[in-house]
Amino acid sequence: MSTTSEILTITQEDLLDCHSLIKPYVHRTPVMSSRLIDAMVGAQIFFKCENFQRMGAYKMRGATHAILKIPEEKRIHGVVTHSSGNFAQALALASQTLGVKAHIVMPSNAPTVKKDAVKAYGGIIVECEPTLEARITTAQNIANETGAVFLHPSNDVNVILGQGTACMELIEDHPALDYIIVPVGGGGLIGGTALATHYFSQGTKVVGAEPFEVDDAYRSFHSGKIETNETTNTIADGLKTILGTNTLPLILKYVDRIIRVEESEIISAMKLIWERMKLVVEPSSAVALAALIRDKKDFQNATVGIILSGGNVDLTNLPF
Amino acid sequence: MSTTSEILTITQEDLLDCHSLIKPYVHRTPVMSSRLIDAMVGAQIFFKCENFQRMGAYKMRGATHAILKIPEEKRIHGVVTHSSGNFAQALALASQTLGVKAHIVMPSNAPTVKKDAVKAYGGIIVECEPTLEARITTAQNIANETGAVFLHPSNDVNVILGQGTACMELIEDHPALDYIIVPVGGGGLIGGTALATHYFSQGTKVVGAEPFEVDDAYRSFHSGKIETNETTNTIADGLKTILGTNTLPLILKYVDRIIRVEESEIISAMKLIWERMKLVVEPSSAVALAALIRDKKDFQNATVGIILSGGNVDLTNLPF
Repeated sequence: MSTTSEILTITQEDLLDCHSLIKPYVHRTPVMSSRLIDAMVGAQIFFKCENFQRMGAYKMRGATHAILKIPEEKRIHGVVTHSSGNFAQALALASQTLGVKAHIVMPSNAPTVKKDAVKAYGGIIVECEPTLEARITTAQNIANETGAVFLHPSNDVNVILGQGTACMELIEDHPALDYIIVPVGGGGLIGGTALATHYFSQGTKVVGAEPFEVDDAYRSFHSGKIETNETTNTIADGLKTILGTNTLPLILKYVDRIIRVEESEIISAMKLIWERMKLVVEPSSAVALAALIRDKKDFQNATVGIILSGGNVDLTNLPF
Repeated sequence: MSTTSEILTITQEDLLDCHSLIKPYVHRTPVMSSRLIDAMVGAQIFFKCENFQRMGAYKMRGATHAILKIPEEKRIHGVVTHSSGNFAQALALASQTLGVKAHIVMPSNAPTVKKDAVKAYGGIIVECEPTLEARITTAQNIANETGAVFLHPSNDVNVILGQGTACMELIEDHPALDYIIVPVGGGGLIGGTALATHYFSQGTKVVGAEPFEVDDAYRSFHSGKIETNETTNTIADGLKTILGTNTLPLILKYVDRIIRVEESEIISAMKLIWERMKLVVEPSSAVALAALIRDKKDFQNATVGIILSGGNVDLTNLPF
């Protein structure tokens, strides 16, 4: 894992190389908009549809990049991560595509639907006790025993770079946006977005969006150190994780503000996207629009990019 | 209303003129695909996403065209239709866009959510008894009293032409498809699709898809006359209507076959599109994919276009 200083030495070329490298393996997702939502908010909004990304989320970008950056002689031993969310599926599918073995450490109480998805993409599931300590230890043991390379779901430098390519494409399609709003969980997406805007669209302000229920990033942004959550009672299950040693410095250096939203605002924004844009997005995706709607007075007549981070939901368990 | 012979005199130029005329008022919708669904079926499938059309369905095309074809001096008296479905909303929105008054006759038992949608687009709702006779009489009375022009939701020649433009765009994007499968209700979409393939892609076979529960078009296709349904117990509420004097001859002349599907197959196909393609589509849209999956042995290695007709659903009342 890289140190704080290393992440801040990332260059424009690193981002461009990353984008070239992963292009054959990921979709260039479309950007969509809605006259009705624009009128509701009073801004011109461009939604980058990463719900249409392979396996249904932007995580596919970072996972693919991180594997491709492992030297061939190491790659044959496989990769390992701990995740019960989209990164688990992304690493499994990226590994399958690239002919690499993927060990996915998942808590024993992870939903069957999530385990099945990882299995369907060829991932090797290793169950552990549902504690952070058990996840880390189990992953380390697998790395030691098999020689598999450990990839952190959000704090790995190459994962962060990969996530930044969604923003690079959005900037290519719609240059000079006033703002880009993204949801914040572990900070991989906002970290990559921060780097991408820094090099390719300096006038664009990066805004994070986070549920009040897990507002560790908001508190970290203001305290300057990694904060944790005592409880994680949010519907936005992709945003329960905390920042890392690489994502925090990016946020502190490049992010304009973090907006927090209520659970009811997340559900309303999600319903709006489903009903009006006809897009299946997961609750975490809707957090960015919820933040924009909550603070819309600050965005009047602005051009705003929103990254719809993913679309993996359990249709039998919807909040409306 | 036109006679049978008139619809069969429609020319290639009529279709091209229609497309030019409506272009400023409707979206050019994208075509999407899914590796997973292709692999499941054994065909290469191109989904024309009319769920992304303005007001959420292809009906916007026909409604816009039908209004634009009314001479200015008549248009000032408004338009009138009877519909409780997407055509009601489409005619209301197209009328609002073009500065025309729209009278929408709806049965008194129509869901509040549908009435509200029509009102939101500026339509003037006139309620009537929930019988076909009352709908027709009420609409005729409004036409007589106000001078408004009556537009049939599916059998009007200009509506049929408008619906055909979705297929024209699909053919432009993906020429020489082996098949195009569309759902059949009143026959406006399949009629327009039949004309479009006849003039722009003669090698493409047009296939209709219909629920067993309302298989009037299947029976009409085989009997040669307009058949009715005794009951309409289908989740595909856009497909409950029967063929008309213009849509039947088009089907008899140009359609290759009509495939019928069970309700459970519609729900499964709908779930597949939501889960795998991240698209919100209404049950009627899913009928075409359900038909393809049911008879997939007949479509092995074929290229198949499917028109996803709409995405207007009540999220609080989903079948899964």
